Amino acid sequence: MAVLLKGTPVVEALTAGLTVRAAALRERGTVPCLAVVRVGERPDDLAYERAAKKRCAAVGIKVRPFVFPADVSQDCLLSAVLGINSDPLIHGCLLFRPLPGSLDESAICAALDPRKDVDGVTMGSMAGVYSGAELGFSPCTAQSCMELLRYYGIDPSGKRAVVIGRSLVIGRPVAMMLLSADATVTLCHTKTRDLPEITRSADLVVVAIGDGEAIGPEYFRAGQTVLDVGINWSEEKQRLVGDVDFERVFPLVGALSPTPSGVGSVTAAVLCKHVIESAGRSEGTESVLRKDCIQ
Amino acid sequence: MAVLLKGTPVVEALTAGLTVRAAALRERGTVPCLAVVRVGERPDDLAYERAAKKRCAAVGIKVRPFVFPADVSQDCLLSAVLGINSDPLIHGCLLFRPLPGSLDESAICAALDPRKDVDGVTMGSMAGVYSGAELGFSPCTAQSCMELLRYYGIDPSGKRAVVIGRSLVIGRPVAMMLLSADATVTLCHTKTRDLPEITRSADLVVVAIGDGEAIGPEYFRAGQTVLDVGINWSEEKQRLVGDVDFERVFPLVGALSPTPSGVGSVTAAVLCKHVIESAGRSEGTESVLRKDCIQ
Repeated sequence: MAVLLKGTPVVEALTAGLTVRAAALRERGTVPCLAVVRVGERPDDLAYERAAKKRCAAVGIKVRPFVFPADVSQDCLLSAVLGINSDPLIHGCLLFRPLPGSLDESAICAALDPRKDVDGVTMGSMAGVYSGAELGFSPCTAQSCMELLRYYGIDPSGKRAVVIGRSLVIGRPVAMMLLSADATVTLCHTKTRDLPEITRSADLVVVAIGDGEAIGPEYFRAGQTVLDVGINWSEEKQRLVGDVDFERVFPLVGALSPTPSGVGSVTAAVLCKHVIESAGRSEGTESVLRKDCIQ
Repeated sequence: MAVLLKGTPVVEALTAGLTVRAAALRERGTVPCLAVVRVGERPDDLAYERAAKKRCAAVGIKVRPFVFPADVSQDCLLSAVLGINSDPLIHGCLLFRPLPGSLDESAICAALDPRKDVDGVTMGSMAGVYSGAELGFSPCTAQSCMELLRYYGIDPSGKRAVVIGRSLVIGRPVAMMLLSADATVTLCHTKTRDLPEITRSADLVVVAIGDGEAIGPEYFRAGQTVLDVGINWSEEKQRLVGDVDFERVFPLVGALSPTPSGVGSVTAAVLCKHVIESAGRSEGTESVLRKDCIQ
């Protein structure tokens, strides 16, 4: 029987640890704080905002919403981001994307200080995840995959990992993080030939293609760990489904994350983890600054 | 009979094209210029500096050496880099590494403007090669692999590529560049198990481990393209050898780059290409600036 890699216990374990760290930060006078920047009222953004607020409340992180109408100007949004950068009481910034087409999204992202980039959208964070340097943060969904593996005791070291999808939000960063965890990593995409043969040779498969139930049992073999990052609406089933055909794949493999309640359900807790880490780093910076002043 | 992927014709073709572009830049008043920053007198650095100067002279690129004693201070070296950043007549900067242990190399690299980082040492360049954004430049040796493939008409698209070695100088960047060229890319390293099985499944293998003739025929099969990035001194043979056991592998595979006169011999020409591109981009910037002033 395959192991169901549910997100709930991962979230509980993360929340418990983070709550302690948040309390310790508060005791030392640092109230961990997340800025949430939203343009317009897209249902997906609102749903994730609610989840993030709930998780932040559970951990002990203050949330400061920065909400703008869909026709906000570039300058106005840019000013908000620069204000967040310079505000020492804000430790992280979640910026909902994509931004409306009238805005220059890459310029907005570039303006954000990588030290507050808790969802890995800046070039600084990308360089960090690519190089392994402590610079910025990894995208939360990619990090969620790693948290699931860690919680369920699946060590990627020496294993063959295959990632399907090469986006900057999940495919590329999770590949680099698996590499840092000493997996042998293969990155597959739309131009990959013989994909089922490649995935069957893996110990660990991460699927992130955004195509409902497209990956069936022919891609897998017994004993594999499969992380399904896809969250797709099925008109036929009138519910959310993953990229993996769960019903047919689950009986075959060793472990599989469900959709919903799998990788995606861990994302908000990872966001909190990044805010706490950023708050901790800022404390370090402040101590250094104080020390410099004393000398 | 395998194809010998020699660097000489690649260098000649690159030089011919770059010479035309350099002449056009000069005609428009831009003299392409490379700053070479060297600390101490390490023989490897001196050898590559000679090769770079020779190639720059052939193309029509001015070289400005910045040479410091091995005991140079951090501040002094940092000032030189900042001076290079702000000098509009310098388009690229080659910084020999590793720097002496007394210097903070990462701080020196971080100070360099990614727009002049023609050897891909800055976080900006790393983010560029990782994300595919036009930001900075890729490391020259990694780019040399791509130039060899292009010259010999080997299109990585849809092919299985295996890269052995995960360094920031060659393994990671060449993996990302092969991915951008639509290859299915596997990154292998010291923790990889069953390496020969993995490399034999590839169409294209890039070897960059820095271990003389360590990769023998058991890693390969007929028809493969193999790029050997290694340059190692063999005490036994009293000459340079690659990471691949050339004599036993060449008869087996479809194409193999030799050491010396393979990938490494293309590096200086790629450096020139990056300087010319940077000079071209700076021209664009200047036009934009001029336009802004007129308005």
